[in-house]
Amino acid sequence: MKAESAIDEFRQLLGDQRVITGELELREWRDPFSFATWNEYTASAVIKPATVKEIQEVVRIAGRHGVPLWTHSQGRNNGYGGPAPRVQGSVIVSLRDMNRVLEINEECAYAVVEPGVRWFDLYETIRAGDHKLMLSIADIGWGSVIGNTLDNGITYMPYGQDQMMQCGMEVALANGEVLRTGMGAMPNNRSWHVYKRGLGPTPDQLFMQSNYGIVTKMGVWLLPYPEVFMPVWVRVWHDDDLAAVLDTLRRLMLEGTVRGVPQVLNTVLYTSMFTTRDQWWQGEGPIPDDRIEEMAREFDCGRWLLRCALYGDEPTVDHGFEKIKAAYGAIPGAEIWGTKCAPEDIPELENPHERVMGGVPSLDLNQMVAWYGGEEGGHIAFSPIAPLTGRDGFALRDLLRGMVEEAGLDYMASLLPVSARSFSHITMIIYDRTDEQQVTSAFEVCKTLVRKAAELGYGEYRAHLDFMDLAAEQYSWNDHAYMRFCETIKDAIDPHGILAPGKQGIWPRSMRQSR
Amino acid sequence: MKAESAIDEFRQLLGDQRVITGELELREWRDPFSFATWNEYTASAVIKPATVKEIQEVVRIAGRHGVPLWTHSQGRNNGYGGPAPRVQGSVIVSLRDMNRVLEINEECAYAVVEPGVRWFDLYETIRAGDHKLMLSIADIGWGSVIGNTLDNGITYMPYGQDQMMQCGMEVALANGEVLRTGMGAMPNNRSWHVYKRGLGPTPDQLFMQSNYGIVTKMGVWLLPYPEVFMPVWVRVWHDDDLAAVLDTLRRLMLEGTVRGVPQVLNTVLYTSMFTTRDQWWQGEGPIPDDRIEEMAREFDCGRWLLRCALYGDEPTVDHGFEKIKAAYGAIPGAEIWGTKCAPEDIPELENPHERVMGGVPSLDLNQMVAWYGGEEGGHIAFSPIAPLTGRDGFALRDLLRGMVEEAGLDYMASLLPVSARSFSHITMIIYDRTDEQQVTSAFEVCKTLVRKAAELGYGEYRAHLDFMDLAAEQYSWNDHAYMRFCETIKDAIDPHGILAPGKQGIWPRSMRQSR
Repeated sequence: MKAESAIDEFRQLLGDQRVITGELELREWRDPFSFATWNEYTASAVIKPATVKEIQEVVRIAGRHGVPLWTHSQGRNNGYGGPAPRVQGSVIVSLRDMNRVLEINEECAYAVVEPGVRWFDLYETIRAGDHKLMLSIADIGWGSVIGNTLDNGITYMPYGQDQMMQCGMEVALANGEVLRTGMGAMPNNRSWHVYKRGLGPTPDQLFMQSNYGIVTKMGVWLLPYPEVFMPVWVRVWHDDDLAAVLDTLRRLMLEGTVRGVPQVLNTVLYTSMFTTRDQWWQGEGPIPDDRIEEMAREFDCGRWLLRCALYGDEPTVDHGFEKIKAAYGAIPGAEIWGTKCAPEDIPELENPHERVMGGVPSLDLNQMVAWYGGEEGGHIAFSPIAPLTGRDGFALRDLLRGMVEEAGLDYMASLLPVSARSFSHITMIIYDRTDEQQVTSAFEVCKTLVRKAAELGYGEYRAHLDFMDLAAEQYSWNDHAYMRFCETIKDAIDPHGILAPGKQGIWPRSMRQSR
Repeated sequence: MKAESAIDEFRQLLGDQRVITGELELREWRDPFSFATWNEYTASAVIKPATVKEIQEVVRIAGRHGVPLWTHSQGRNNGYGGPAPRVQGSVIVSLRDMNRVLEINEECAYAVVEPGVRWFDLYETIRAGDHKLMLSIADIGWGSVIGNTLDNGITYMPYGQDQMMQCGMEVALANGEVLRTGMGAMPNNRSWHVYKRGLGPTPDQLFMQSNYGIVTKMGVWLLPYPEVFMPVWVRVWHDDDLAAVLDTLRRLMLEGTVRGVPQVLNTVLYTSMFTTRDQWWQGEGPIPDDRIEEMAREFDCGRWLLRCALYGDEPTVDHGFEKIKAAYGAIPGAEIWGTKCAPEDIPELENPHERVMGGVPSLDLNQMVAWYGGEEGGHIAFSPIAPLTGRDGFALRDLLRGMVEEAGLDYMASLLPVSARSFSHITMIIYDRTDEQQVTSAFEVCKTLVRKAAELGYGEYRAHLDFMDLAAEQYSWNDHAYMRFCETIKDAIDPHGILAPGKQGIWPRSMRQSR
């Protein structure tokens, strides 16, 4: 097998300790939420380079042997396949050990990190240096800052809007070359991590959700401590209040009152973050609507619960809160509350959602995976994008809830406005992963949803390994012109097709099926 | 000559009226600020396709004949070469007649435009529809919305920060194919112009400052009318106050008090926008410092004048103004003033700078070109990027002023913070373009500055045709890895090398010199 001789060379380069091939050990790098005996997305080895030079050698070896690599930073891409590779037998390049925070610049409020740096790590480094800077983080603290960014992942502070926090990259290409983007393409340029473009085309977003390179360094913008941080909650009691919640949010975000990325959570998803399913429902099938209505009141979270936050000086935050109260006060029965807090006191906040919006990472929100009890929970995410309007909110809710419940599963929704104009409808399809039938249903319903949502004009922003191709196929305008463009670039910069073949539906020439 | 037979085919496609080859007529498409007898950057023809289908045919014809095309939207790239092509004898593809506003969406606050749509056109269309939406514009109203965006051009409202206003493109490629970016890659997707990415890599910024495609449609985000618009001015009296002006601005922008893109203008540049040089100085050489000191007082504009604006409801604007006053009040002698105004009343404002920040286009600020009197003025711009700090402000001011004055020219500076962390030092080198010696000095000093600035770690964000290659050469990290990457993509998607060869230093294989 061609991988064998490559693995020998990887061992020579990295030593035995950093080349993992034992079957038991490799299980850690499978999709953690797949059914136990499913084998489709498994690696032949995991290798752990720790320097850029080692990464350059790794891709050269892979190129010579034609061995597919699948890179992750931390590999916490849960709900979309975790660390598992698209192509069976790929060699996983795990950058978990490449985890240095290279710089924190307090004056211009940015950090420079390596791929293995987790939210936890960067947060701790900022705190250890006593920098008055906040980090916009994802919900679960174990993820990689770079990894999340490269998958168009979402964070919640003002720089989370439109995924604005990345500035300047270093990238290793398939041929072993290393380039720097933006102003970093000039030696010793002072603006690599403060100006988002350069002279000539800006390739940064070309390395996101693609298989064009391995990002080895990245700049991350930080938020100077505001005087006040104020998490704000809005609770509504009718399922159809969703439209008004979204339309109001659009106006508040367009005018700049809400500058971060809110979440609009439905009863079942919010409840799952703190409790288990059997506390609420032990009957057959999905939790019925009248029971959800009771849960909304018993857990006091409403049918939809909006979380957002204000960042600023005290008069600005007070004024913003008054505007949010006035805007949402128009929804009958809506309740709006919030508590101001100094940035220093965010770690003491009880509700993990509030800590997340304040940039303090933990694993608390991972609790939802245990919805079916114990350690055996899993989830898959179906995440279409829509304009931030009530009409679009209804259209997606009705489609998704209908199909998910028809499959016998609970409709668990988090609507995330990633900009003032659009939201991602993150549908968390949670299941008991010891129940093969239920896991199968979850995967199948997602695949059906990919097509049905596309028919209505909604496309996924990110897709699980198992339906990446299907999701990409929906982006077929003008006979798949976009994908042909992606393939042309792929073939030009990775002619051996070694970097993450199949990622987001982009296959190298040698592995492409005729369309 | 190979262009001849291509031009015959262009005539068949477009008709004689839309294929211009007369020498006199072609003069309109030369660099308007070049010396009259310089011939280096001249076209052999100008063609004016009016539909996407015609553009597709144009590139196919050019490909068959190997004729270089040079596309512009309006061609108002003044200071950087105007509409003129990099390669002598290129056929200019002028999209001035492709000027429809295709959509204005009031709910989600965006427009969709064709390349020929000028700031004037989109502004008028918004007003004609009575939409309560503001358009972030450049200083001079005749430019194209798409053209400015594709050259990483600057606008001044909140979406001007980090050049955020573009969302979703349609692009014709060199092979005649047309693709749509982001969610537009899915047929009938509802989020093309509201979500900035898609599934897979986002190529939009690949088509900016490049020669990879011809953008045929683009989404532009608009700002819903704020309750109040308030232009704000800060005037300081000492040249060295510049450092405090910049450091204070960084803090105000990082905290979100100033959300648009300010300008910091020096005495001579500000004065040039309203008066001519002979009113101030008729002696030899650059205007001496003691005379500038007098001009600062006589024209009442200070040594540095900051323009910025606040957008929001009245309490927010009032509070922002108080914060700006408090922050700049720390500079001895600084004066801070501003006047609130309803969005409807912006067209009545007297100062064109205030109208520009309020999104009302005109040609008023073009007055500076007449600094040497009459119609015969010209300018070239040298525009390096730096971190937004006082130290970097001093370093660039000292370098640029020294070199420009040594060349016998006036130092005319506009420092533009394009983000909270960086600024572009736009150096307007204005000259009398009937004076060949002076024009030559202006071009020569720019070329020297490209190298000198790079030695200090500052790179240009945009470069004149005449030193595009030189500017690009400075981006040489790792033996020009970035440029090699750009060239690899160029060769893959434009193998005949017909689209804008040489743009930003990117040459197709057939025209490349070995490095």
